[in-house]
Amino acid sequence: MPEIHKGLEGVYIDESNISRVFGDEGKLTYRGYWIDDLAQHSTYEEVVYLLLYGELPDQEELDAFTNQLASHREISDTTRNVIDGMADAGPMDVLRTAVSSTAEATEGEFSVEENRQHGIEIIAKVPTILAYFNRVRNGEEPIKPREDLSHAANFYYMLHGEEPTEVQEHAVNTAMVLYAEHGMNASTFTAVTIASTQANMYSAVTGGIGALQGPLHGGATETVVDMLDDIGSADSVADWVDARIDAHEKIPGFGHRVYRSVDPRCAQFARVYQELVDEDGESARLELIETVHEYVVEEKGLGEKGIYPNTDLYSGTVYSALGIDPDLYTCMFTMARVAGWVAHVLEQWEDNRILRPRVEYTGEVGKEFVPVEER
Amino acid sequence: MPEIHKGLEGVYIDESNISRVFGDEGKLTYRGYWIDDLAQHSTYEEVVYLLLYGELPDQEELDAFTNQLASHREISDTTRNVIDGMADAGPMDVLRTAVSSTAEATEGEFSVEENRQHGIEIIAKVPTILAYFNRVRNGEEPIKPREDLSHAANFYYMLHGEEPTEVQEHAVNTAMVLYAEHGMNASTFTAVTIASTQANMYSAVTGGIGALQGPLHGGATETVVDMLDDIGSADSVADWVDARIDAHEKIPGFGHRVYRSVDPRCAQFARVYQELVDEDGESARLELIETVHEYVVEEKGLGEKGIYPNTDLYSGTVYSALGIDPDLYTCMFTMARVAGWVAHVLEQWEDNRILRPRVEYTGEVGKEFVPVEER
Repeated sequence: MPEIHKGLEGVYIDESNISRVFGDEGKLTYRGYWIDDLAQHSTYEEVVYLLLYGELPDQEELDAFTNQLASHREISDTTRNVIDGMADAGPMDVLRTAVSSTAEATEGEFSVEENRQHGIEIIAKVPTILAYFNRVRNGEEPIKPREDLSHAANFYYMLHGEEPTEVQEHAVNTAMVLYAEHGMNASTFTAVTIASTQANMYSAVTGGIGALQGPLHGGATETVVDMLDDIGSADSVADWVDARIDAHEKIPGFGHRVYRSVDPRCAQFARVYQELVDEDGESARLELIETVHEYVVEEKGLGEKGIYPNTDLYSGTVYSALGIDPDLYTCMFTMARVAGWVAHVLEQWEDNRILRPRVEYTGEVGKEFVPVEER
Repeated sequence: MPEIHKGLEGVYIDESNISRVFGDEGKLTYRGYWIDDLAQHSTYEEVVYLLLYGELPDQEELDAFTNQLASHREISDTTRNVIDGMADAGPMDVLRTAVSSTAEATEGEFSVEENRQHGIEIIAKVPTILAYFNRVRNGEEPIKPREDLSHAANFYYMLHGEEPTEVQEHAVNTAMVLYAEHGMNASTFTAVTIASTQANMYSAVTGGIGALQGPLHGGATETVVDMLDDIGSADSVADWVDARIDAHEKIPGFGHRVYRSVDPRCAQFARVYQELVDEDGESARLELIETVHEYVVEEKGLGEKGIYPNTDLYSGTVYSALGIDPDLYTCMFTMARVAGWVAHVLEQWEDNRILRPRVEYTGEVGKEFVPVEER
């Protein structure tokens, strides 16, 4: 009986120089830059360039790349028809299908440069798809993309019909930078596996969206918002958490396969959330979140067992403050992560080998076939 | 530096009791039954039931299942719009998008039984999608599915506008039985990885289609037909093959990661091809194929090195004799393999663990972030 690597835990499939998660220290780097620097000081456009080309762009490169992304924001009639026809479906089902439909004008095999170009076009179109879907399902008139706005600001504009404030634009941008890439997670691995057959970029990214749909991967942020609604106020945290732990149930927003300390993205989400609250004056949820965080990690001692908050604990409140519906949170994640998928797919093709593991057959052999009339 | 398992070759990820490839002996079993028996004596409907439920159906179960499949053949306006809008795109891009669009009426999380039901609906609709696409792109009127025909006969009918002969129906059926399942290949692995996040069946199957698009996996049959056209006649085989081998180029239709002898499906494809030729009287290509087979394996001695024909060498000529265009061969493969994907996804959920391997980061760390104006 061979050794079974269930979930492929601890199995290394390749080298990569795109990003690294320092699970014990709670640090994250994209191409050598710390996530804190990128989240505070760079635009999503810069980060996408960094992920796809390996280096931060200079001003000229950034301007050209920004224009290139902006010029591909429009979606076709076919993609709009997909969304119109699926207005009652799950948002990730719609996003997966709509992105898949952007391959309408392609055929055959492509060079690396053509594939990268297709990746850039997909990255450009996802915000348009998402905003279009949300407006159509709410019975609102869709809003066409504008080329003069940043990737983040244009998304906010297409979603709400008005331009964001600087603080709001920065919040959208930061959320996208924070979720742009995170190593060989299940959706990235899916995209890479598809690409390893030399399928095209559309197939790889569509597959990634499919994997991110799953609640074990991308679909957990909503449950945190439900939890916070349920707890209500900081006073109730202890009772709520105690009941959960006594019942041996998981606490939403805690735990991660890789991190054994606080996910470094949490502080950045908390920062932009505070900025949004300061500008807007709305009642803040940060205190409630921080109380849950502290109670679970310190009071209940789960930190010592390696259980710390993950980004889900913080990101939903940021999205909520930006007026984004809870059932779109996984789509927000997707909108950012597309960049990481494209980067990993391009890296896979630099030294490709088809991904084909094995399974140990434990079924029967040599059963006699009896025709159905005699069964 | 950890050990790197490039391509996951030889890495076992799980147990399975769906199928087993006996690579050295050249044998293949689905759920304990030999592929030769299934290819000769069972319908695709029976085999799908076998894969999805683990046992061959009795007459009553088979009748109910056949009716169930037949009742889900119709595709929606949304799916038709997808295909109409993508009539100029690559067939696998269209198939991937169209299948993804069948999730139009679903949302939320599903029970195993609901997921199995979604899988059955997808299996039922793929032939309709494929036939509809082919007719639309050829400027022909699409033909609605009929419930009174078998899965195989109905596909032929929707494609060509006339019912197949018994021999033709059996050939389509056999091709579908032979390709219904083949262990943990790259597309099945993709579907399972997506399912491991608890994403839905639509996401899993859509991802599988994406992976099968790649020429290293599903997209190799076309090149065999090109080769046979190029060789022309049995007299030219030696020269053609010698030139290829001297140039260290691969010979289309030979070699497989798992088989180290003749793929057992080849003989079944050859059998139904001979039946088609006998009925039709068309000039046969079987002699040419057999000559290539023998020359490469015996004369050139590649068989001793473990290089034998794979199904690609034979399947294209069967499809060709059935009047199916070469750029649809990978779609034919997909139409059959959907059943295997659904079976593996259901098996994955019986004892699920998210698939998340690792990569070894070889890039830089701690680079100083400089604002773009100062770069």
